[in-house]
Amino acid sequence: MAFDLTHAYAVIMAGGGGTRLWPLSRRERPKQLLPLIGQETLFQSTVKRLEGLFPPERILVVTVEEQAREMKSQTPELPDENYLIEPAPRGTASVVGLAAMTLQKRDPMASMAILPSDHFIRNVDLFHYLLKAAFEVADRSYLVTLGITPTLPSTAFGYIQQGSPLDGGYTYPVYEVKSFKEKPSEKTAQQLLHSGDHSWNSGMFIWRTDAILDEIRMQMPRLHGTLEFIGSRWGRGDFDASLKEKWLDLKTETVDYGIMEKAERVAVLPAGGLGWSDVGIWSSLFEVLLPDMNGNIATNATSHLALETNNTLVYSGSDRLIVTIGVDDTIIIDTGDALLICKTDQSQKVKDVVEHLKKHRQEKYL
Amino acid sequence: MAFDLTHAYAVIMAGGGGTRLWPLSRRERPKQLLPLIGQETLFQSTVKRLEGLFPPERILVVTVEEQAREMKSQTPELPDENYLIEPAPRGTASVVGLAAMTLQKRDPMASMAILPSDHFIRNVDLFHYLLKAAFEVADRSYLVTLGITPTLPSTAFGYIQQGSPLDGGYTYPVYEVKSFKEKPSEKTAQQLLHSGDHSWNSGMFIWRTDAILDEIRMQMPRLHGTLEFIGSRWGRGDFDASLKEKWLDLKTETVDYGIMEKAERVAVLPAGGLGWSDVGIWSSLFEVLLPDMNGNIATNATSHLALETNNTLVYSGSDRLIVTIGVDDTIIIDTGDALLICKTDQSQKVKDVVEHLKKHRQEKYL
Repeated sequence: MAFDLTHAYAVIMAGGGGTRLWPLSRRERPKQLLPLIGQETLFQSTVKRLEGLFPPERILVVTVEEQAREMKSQTPELPDENYLIEPAPRGTASVVGLAAMTLQKRDPMASMAILPSDHFIRNVDLFHYLLKAAFEVADRSYLVTLGITPTLPSTAFGYIQQGSPLDGGYTYPVYEVKSFKEKPSEKTAQQLLHSGDHSWNSGMFIWRTDAILDEIRMQMPRLHGTLEFIGSRWGRGDFDASLKEKWLDLKTETVDYGIMEKAERVAVLPAGGLGWSDVGIWSSLFEVLLPDMNGNIATNATSHLALETNNTLVYSGSDRLIVTIGVDDTIIIDTGDALLICKTDQSQKVKDVVEHLKKHRQEKYL
Repeated sequence: MAFDLTHAYAVIMAGGGGTRLWPLSRRERPKQLLPLIGQETLFQSTVKRLEGLFPPERILVVTVEEQAREMKSQTPELPDENYLIEPAPRGTASVVGLAAMTLQKRDPMASMAILPSDHFIRNVDLFHYLLKAAFEVADRSYLVTLGITPTLPSTAFGYIQQGSPLDGGYTYPVYEVKSFKEKPSEKTAQQLLHSGDHSWNSGMFIWRTDAILDEIRMQMPRLHGTLEFIGSRWGRGDFDASLKEKWLDLKTETVDYGIMEKAERVAVLPAGGLGWSDVGIWSSLFEVLLPDMNGNIATNATSHLALETNNTLVYSGSDRLIVTIGVDDTIIIDTGDALLICKTDQSQKVKDVVEHLKKHRQEKYL
């Protein structure tokens, strides 16, 4: 495979705010800006992961004003003009539209890979291989998505059902997409896991900018109209003002349900062995970090003294000593103003804590 | 019972250093000086508990130089000259001797109650009643000890076996002591619990100063000689110097094995319902603090947000928020430089942690 990537761009989506990694992630310190795994932040790792495939000038970041400054300081290698600022978050469909419109103006032949800023991928070589393959398929005007071969019956992800293999003499498996499925119930997740033809929706998409803009025109004419209007101000002094004005009127919609579900030419590349995690919940760190012989993980150079302790993850933002005795299957997150101690299998309840804090106006912890 | 307490004194022993309440208790901050239960320190509570029975001028404290200043600031109501400073810790027998000699010099008719500084007693009225009774028995030259009616087969305490009821027309139960027993094995502890004639040795003793000095003369002639020599310097300018010089030569011995075991006239008042605890281990706080409906205890005004959490004790030295999810039967001690998370039934292993820290010269945590 020697596909020409001269017009291929990476677009990193980085506006999100999640609450499931509280108390480490906060409004002002969203997950992608934190050094969760090793010394780099997830955002830095996402950029670094693209080295060798995209030069910095072909890596774009779409984010919100509040996060842009920190991101720029974390990745000084990216040109300033490659940061696209959303006036306010309006869902992934709008992000995709803004990025596609911008790239069209800069390079009418542009293809793009949309990549979340806060995921982990262990096998970078395979990731590069898959992206190149996806760009090759996308060149034939397919909307391509990377599917993750499921390893457990997760109810935290949407699923993609594959149909027939795609014609075209590809040397890797690629299929037409039969359907996108929302996050399933536990029972359904079990069935999907064993079906053999479903992947997790990773939120990674690859397409030509003209193809995705065509699709937006058909599926989301209002968004397309807005993009046309903003695009008509391209290079003019009132571009930012018109972007801001028009953007606030957009409805919030996702690329999955706003575009992909109804599109005709959609393909999936299923990926096993990528070592992918969305790091969406504290327990997911057990999948991406290497535990010691007792299954314990001390992240971020935490000083952990463990007696009769198993399968326990400790994260400390300071150099204090953390001692555990007789503790099993627990996650301990020690930050300046808050301490979380949570059974691993209940880490999904962290979001309930954040809801509680919101409801009781404990702003300083949010 | 209207026994005259004019010559009755309380002597609080407060030199100890224990490690089992780490990380809260440290070399510089021993257990008795900490506000473990409510706002007062255990030492302050011990002094306060004597209100109504002893005026401040009849309450003495025996401690070491390093702790005296903090103690004086915690209990300004006690006269300065009522602090007796041990040049170095030499066991409870020496403390008893020093206090008895001092009281003899001040008041030849003195009786004294020896009381640990770091225990908890809920039922203060009953405690007063028992002390008065004990002084009455002691007035007949008995060495009296308060026994605690056991509620579980503890291996953490010595036991006292009672013999025949003491003649004398007492309106409360009081027995001759048949034997003192060291901390038993688990199996023996079960037998002692069900025997019906064994109490825990609480370390609280009541006697006339002349009676205990006589006993020291017989059982521990060397200590007695030292006390005589020091006593001969009473009121002289070289008293402190001779105390310091002679004290360092003493052997370390306990009152239980050095004196009580071999004494002739020894009596025990068994006490049930005193709500006593030696607060010797973190799990003992569950016996003395009132839990909420889920069995959780947040001490020291700790801010604890509990989800699916049961029988868990949280102590925080700061105002940080502590969140637990799915946590059961756990003790969480959050101090400035160290955090302990320990299954309640393993709190005896805290001392192993301290040993480990000593061995690895982690002085700053000791």
